[in-house]
Amino acid sequence: MSRTAHKPPRPTARALLAENLRRLRAENDWSQYDLAQRSGVDRSFIAHVERQARNVSVDVLERLAIALQVPIGELFAE
Amino acid sequence: MSRTAHKPPRPTARALLAENLRRLRAENDWSQYDLAQRSGVDRSFIAHVERQARNVSVDVLERLAIALQVPIGELFAE
Repeated sequence: MSRTAHKPPRPTARALLAENLRRLRAENDWSQYDLAQRSGVDRSFIAHVERQARNVSVDVLERLAIALQVPIGELFAE
Repeated sequence: MSRTAHKPPRPTARALLAENLRRLRAENDWSQYDLAQRSGVDRSFIAHVERQARNVSVDVLERLAIALQVPIGELFAE
């Protein structure tokens, strides 16, 4: 059996987004409610996104990125 | 009148996405049809995205990124 280094599967876009949203909120010491207030995105929607349970649109991604003051690509940082 | 350097407004997420899709297609020498074939995303939908006329979802963004073999964040490179 060849000993090729086992590369973990690439994280999905939803997983990257969930992870980065949580990280960026923590860096700002914001609750989901705080991010909802600043982005105008519904708090429970944010909660679903952080559980990878929503197929978020680019316009909503933009509102979240603006509120977090990061380039939108940062929401998918690996 | 103060001579503050005039900073152009930041491009919208839709504008970044449109520009990067066209750039990445050109780098691969792909038509919209070629990208549609490889991503499973409808060609006319791709045409609309490249005209900033669609509010694309993260799952569709992922299919485009996989077809173009780039990290999803590359679709929003500035």
